Order: sequence, then structure tokens, then C-alpha cells
Amino acid sequence: MNYKMEIQYDGTKYHGWQRLEKFETVQGKIEDVLTKLFGHKIEIHGAGRTDAGVHAKGQIANFKVNEDKKEEEILAYLNKYLPDDIAVTKISRVDDRFHSRLSAKGKIYSYRILNSDIEDVFNRRFVYRISGELYIKEMEKAAEYFIGEHNFKAFCSNKHFKKSAVREIYSIDFVKHGDEIELIFSGNGFLYNMVRIITGTLIEVGQGRRKAEEIPNIILSQKREMAGETAPAKGLCLMRVLY
Amino acid sequence: MNYKMEIQYDGTKYHGWQRLEKFETVQGKIEDVLTKLFGHKIEIHGAGRTDAGVHAKGQIANFKVNEDKKEEEILAYLNKYLPDDIAVTKISRVDDRFHSRLSAKGKIYSYRILNSDIEDVFNRRFVYRISGELYIKEMEKAAEYFIGEHNFKAFCSNKHFKKSAVREIYSIDFVKHGDEIELIFSGNGFLYNMVRIITGTLIEVGQGRRKAEEIPNIILSQKREMAGETAPAKGLCLMRVLY
Repeated sequence: MNYKMEIQYDGTKYHGWQRLEKFETVQGKIEDVLTKLFGHKIEIHGAGRTDAGVHAKGQIANFKVNEDKKEEEILAYLNKYLPDDIAVTKISRVDDRFHSRLSAKGKIYSYRILNSDIEDVFNRRFVYRISGELYIKEMEKAAEYFIGEHNFKAFCSNKHFKKSAVREIYSIDFVKHGDEIELIFSGNGFLYNMVRIITGTLIEVGQGRRKAEEIPNIILSQKREMAGETAPAKGLCLMRVLY
Repeated sequence: MNYKMEIQYDGTKYHGWQRLEKFETVQGKIEDVLTKLFGHKIEIHGAGRTDAGVHAKGQIANFKVNEDKKEEEILAYLNKYLPDDIAVTKISRVDDRFHSRLSAKGKIYSYRILNSDIEDVFNRRFVYRISGELYIKEMEKAAEYFIGEHNFKAFCSNKHFKKSAVREIYSIDFVKHGDEIELIFSGNGFLYNMVRIITGTLIEVGQGRRKAEEIPNIILSQKREMAGETAPAKGLCLMRVLY
């Protein structure tokens, strides 16, 4: 049997998705509960390895077992024993060939910015707060340059990345709710820290520290040091995996 | 000078509003910062003494000092030194006769219920989750009986309450957002735990454990044991104080 899960988590206190020996991770927590349920070691495969502090509303993971357990039983067991900052919202049996990461056609990420001098105490774990003026129009102009297929090496934290850094960004949408600006990225794949570095660069444009017109040269340079700072993990959320 | 503050807090980790010797409270935190700023002991008066675990989006408090400091200076200092689960959103100079609690004409509270088998990991500190079916129509019918001026002694946790327990509830509105039901209470005043006991009673109606038509007799009984359970603190939020 191949089971596919939809997962939400508040990543604040985890060392990211991927299982680690000495730290609490989301993958580790879920595997521990499944291992207890099935009575033997279960390994799950996540669609995206979110970093420490990054959240998810629509992470996808799958796992294979010989046992034929009912989906509802697995779902109820997981939600009973998982900590309250991780929830499995759906579970379904899928074709054996399905693999969360390898079958993915794209992903949607959200980055939430709060442009205010005052903390939003209810959302402080999920937004990056920036004081002072932000020129959103300039940020939108800058965002346009990222759309399409590019080599995004300048927007990747992994210096030893050997494979192709060519990715396609389908869209970057700006959604405003009061003082909050949510940047919604969709694309066929994202390099390590890519959304956070693009966001950090867009913020520098919004603060008037860079010009929107500099973006094409930064992309072409393929040099990490040409791009902006990596925006903090807490504003980022994996919203959906496209198949 | 008499300064009026608007305050938001995530009450999860506090022993409520009111200053206590051995526990962290919201009043205590704010007084400590103001005492540091002014260099002498400051006492603040809150409009409502929210319980441990209760939140606020619009708590009001005032304090009197002889010093004539700029509002912006006090606001910036408070938000710099307060923990990130407490924020002062506004500060203004008001007439000497203004007193947060004594001048209040009414209050608005919100109680958030999540009717789902699955945790909402992002709002888990702010909603009370209930599995299984809830008959909202019946809850709305039951809520109608509370509107108006009544003796609410049956909905008060303080058994030794000596003063008048007569209060007027102006409205109880049900607002639905997906699986969430937000109950919005407005009234001229609320007794100790009154919103939580009314909500607990309405939930029992929603679960079919009581009939809406029982409410008038519960009110008339003036007996706490006739009413339902006290709903958990975490769903409750003081939204606004009316003057």
C-alpha cells in the first residue's frame, strides 16, 4: 500500500522537516507515530524539505507498507498522538508509482510580511514584521523580472550545489490584508532558500535600498552575494504541492 | 497626565491580566516597563480582568503620572521592551476623570469554536476545538434567551459574589468562517467567567445534550450548577471596550 498524507505544521519549534538524529523535526515526529501504529519502522517521503522555522499548510508526504489499514484509522491515530503543532489533514491510498517529491510538478509558497511599527501578537510566529515605509509598487515591479525560466543560482544558499539551478517561476502575486502583504510564489521547483532570498531582495527594493531594474543583472550574475539578504524563516509557508 | 492605552495580548502563557506576586501577568509586564521608563512605580488600571489564558485585541488601561512625556515616546518604549506576546497599539492623553474600568459603558468579547476533527495548527492557541456535529441553529435559538437584562448569577463562577448580578447582553452574534464559529458577545458588563459559562452551555445545546428551551429556567434558577461547563479560556478574547 502507498499512502499519501496532507500535512500542516507550525514550524516554530522544529529543526525543519527532515529527520535528524539529535533534533526534533516534523518528519521525525510523524515517523515516530506511524512506527508505533504499524509496529515496525516507517519511512516517509516529503515533497519539500522545509527549513527550521518554516511552516506548512499543504505539505505532502507518502509512505509504503504491506499492511492494509483503513485511511480513517491511520488519520485518527496520527492526530491523536502528534503534538498539537502538527496535523495530518487528509490521508488517501494512491498508486504505487506516486512519490511525493519525484511526482511533484510544482509548489506554491507564501511569504507574509507585516508592515507595521507594532507587533501583531496573534500572528507573530507567522509573519516577518518590517517597520518603516515599504514601496509595494516597486516590489511588484521587481517581482516581474523573476517570472519565467531562469538560472536562480544567485538565489540559492547552497554554494556547492552541483545540479542545474534552472527553475521556472510561474507567478509572484501580492495580496494585501490591512498592514500585511502576502507574497505568493508558484513555480516548478525552488532551490534551497530561494523564496527567502528572493523575498529578502524584494524587501530591499521596497525599502529603496535597491532598484527594481537591478534584478536582471543579479539573476544573470549567478552570484549569491549580488542578491539580498535571506528573509527570516518564520514568514514562509509551503501552501500546496502541485501534481 | 492621564494616559489611555489600547493593548493586545496572546494570553496563553500569562496568569491573566491582574498583577500577582509570584506569576507573570499582563498588567505586571506593562507596569514593569512603565516603571523603568518613568523611574518610579507606575500602577495601571485595566478595563477588564481577563483570566489566565484569555486573549485581548482591545484591552484598555490607563495610568496617571506628573511627567509630560510624548505619547509616541511612551508607545515606542513599551513596544521595545514588552515581550512579543503583548503589544500596545495606541496611546493617547485623556481627561483626568477617565478611568478604564469605571468609565466603561460596555464590552465586546469573542469566543472562537473550531468544529473539526482536526487541529488548526495555526490557531490552536485561540480556538476551542470540538469534534463531532454541532447544531448551530439550536445554539442560535438558545442564545436569543440571553439577550436583554437578566440576573446572570447562574453564569458566574464566583459563589461569594455579593453585588448585583444583573447585566444586560445587547447581542450574541454567530459568525462562521469555514469550520470556525465565532460567538460575539456585547453587553454592558460581564460577571466572572460569564461569557465562558454561557458559551459552555450553548455548546451543550449544540451537541444535543440540552434543549434551547431550558435556558430561561437556568437563568431564573440563579444556580451555577444548573448551567453548563465553563468553556476553556483559550477561545476567549476581549475585543473592545465601549465608552
